[in-house]
Amino acid sequence: MKNNLLIRAAHGEKVERTPVWMMRQAGRYLPEYRAIRKDIPFLELCKTVDLAVEVSLQPYRLLDVDAVIMFSDILIPVEAMGQEVQLTEKKGPELPSPIRTREQIDQLIVPDPTEKTGFVMEIIRTLRRELDGAVPLIGFAGAPWTLAAYMIEGGGSKSYGYVKQMMFKEPQNFHALLDKIADAIILYLNAQIEAGAQIIQLFDSWAGELSRKDYAEFALPYQQKIFAALKRKDTPTIMYINNSDHFLEQMATCGADVLSLDWRTDLQEARRRVGDQFTLQGNLDPCILLSTPEIIRAKTRAILAAGGGHQHILNLGHGILPMTPVENARAFIETAKGV
Amino acid sequence: MKNNLLIRAAHGEKVERTPVWMMRQAGRYLPEYRAIRKDIPFLELCKTVDLAVEVSLQPYRLLDVDAVIMFSDILIPVEAMGQEVQLTEKKGPELPSPIRTREQIDQLIVPDPTEKTGFVMEIIRTLRRELDGAVPLIGFAGAPWTLAAYMIEGGGSKSYGYVKQMMFKEPQNFHALLDKIADAIILYLNAQIEAGAQIIQLFDSWAGELSRKDYAEFALPYQQKIFAALKRKDTPTIMYINNSDHFLEQMATCGADVLSLDWRTDLQEARRRVGDQFTLQGNLDPCILLSTPEIIRAKTRAILAAGGGHQHILNLGHGILPMTPVENARAFIETAKGV
Repeated sequence: MKNNLLIRAAHGEKVERTPVWMMRQAGRYLPEYRAIRKDIPFLELCKTVDLAVEVSLQPYRLLDVDAVIMFSDILIPVEAMGQEVQLTEKKGPELPSPIRTREQIDQLIVPDPTEKTGFVMEIIRTLRRELDGAVPLIGFAGAPWTLAAYMIEGGGSKSYGYVKQMMFKEPQNFHALLDKIADAIILYLNAQIEAGAQIIQLFDSWAGELSRKDYAEFALPYQQKIFAALKRKDTPTIMYINNSDHFLEQMATCGADVLSLDWRTDLQEARRRVGDQFTLQGNLDPCILLSTPEIIRAKTRAILAAGGGHQHILNLGHGILPMTPVENARAFIETAKGV
Repeated sequence: MKNNLLIRAAHGEKVERTPVWMMRQAGRYLPEYRAIRKDIPFLELCKTVDLAVEVSLQPYRLLDVDAVIMFSDILIPVEAMGQEVQLTEKKGPELPSPIRTREQIDQLIVPDPTEKTGFVMEIIRTLRRELDGAVPLIGFAGAPWTLAAYMIEGGGSKSYGYVKQMMFKEPQNFHALLDKIADAIILYLNAQIEAGAQIIQLFDSWAGELSRKDYAEFALPYQQKIFAALKRKDTPTIMYINNSDHFLEQMATCGADVLSLDWRTDLQEARRRVGDQFTLQGNLDPCILLSTPEIIRAKTRAILAAGGGHQHILNLGHGILPMTPVENARAFIETAKGV
């Protein structure tokens, strides 16, 4: 591999400089992405191999990031499990038949990922060919708590009332759902590794809504189950949770090599709390990319300093926002590269 | 006062039992509230003294809570400052002309609260007469960061992109806005105390979106300014922030007597972190009220135990959800009372 900085940093090896990529780097802030997206619905774009490959590569070509992440959506395996998913980027995901009963849980299947989501594996294989070892390729999936939240709420949520209602009122049913999702995600991620994904990131984006106790009971065990079951080929793993500061020590037991943090946690403080065995990823507030290149450079340098140049992957604390000017994203990337 | 448990607990005095009330206790989960609300728009209800008094008293009459909070909305003073506010409970607040420029900031006024929001003071005076010393009356306001977020976003937000853009890109303009809001809120809360509010709660509901550094620069100083300027008559003060675990020690310097916490923070751990000089309020996940009375009682008892029966006001970690069954809210209240 020509640029394996991210792999080495994830494994805790010494690197010449801190590697950098951005969550949702293949997305709406890029005019080149919008040009493709205007002619094709989001879900169809996820399933059209050549176009998904193209938009995955855009941030690498345009911004020279240190890794490519396959273009996809965390709800792709949910659809494969048998629940209808509608994805329009503007309105967010909509699942018109939300899961509310044990019967609905039992009807979900644990799909063969090469059969039901073969397009994802084809995207990965094609990206590996196209990249030809230039930078590593990141595969990913959503974690059970977050996917269950979408499946039960029927979309995004502010209060998480329905998913937490099942969690508190019918914990056995909820565990059955979480376990089924975990089984599906294990197969899905192992198929991604088999197809050529060189790093795996697990997104439990909304687990930060949970108390420590509820995180320990309903989210962490399924993250652990997934990481323990991955058939890794020297494949580093990353755990991302938005809003994880209150259970960071617990998160550190999830089994991932890299802990991806939002801007609420100071990286030096995180290092003190979780010890030396992890690489930390993050953690610029993506809203800082809405300011100016000068401000972005200063705030990014502060994060690079807090990361200490070792066991650190520079990233945002959450996905890049669609309203971000491209030159601001470039200022972020270039600062990591010392340009 | 017949039942002054909440006042005494807020002052750190010994109490016979832990007092209890619920954020948003006058609200849509009550059929009696919905019966009044169906004939009148939300904002009009806030401004119609006899009806606002009636819905404020409903949770006291129906559930026997230990305090009454005046029925109102944190955006009432924003409208008085000169920005149009539309409030429909279902869609959430909408501010059709969001603040984006210095000129707009300069055009906002610091209103005389008795002139522009006299109805709020009249609601307070009437409630005091009606209550006749039965339980204390809570007045409240939103804090500058949270109000600025609504004013700049033009409503609720998921990413807080616009407010944080001004915060990071034009910090001087943002400070000018925050300071003007603080001045308005100081007058507003002092008018409430003058009218008869016996406890004051300040809501910085969305300050948890900020990193420690940004909280210290853009939210905390304005909370401190407000608490320092209140003309208290033995009036206890409560600071509520959703998602405050990552800056709890900083929050403890805001100047309030009571720190109101969400469910992410364990009360015993919070006590260890902030010391003995504060009363803690909270912190049941409001989604637990969507389970069953039996589960609610068990989880509420655990919080009462963590609170230790001293310097603790039982409450939810966030407002009660509209879909909450009344008997579940009752189970929560009754558990505090040992019924």
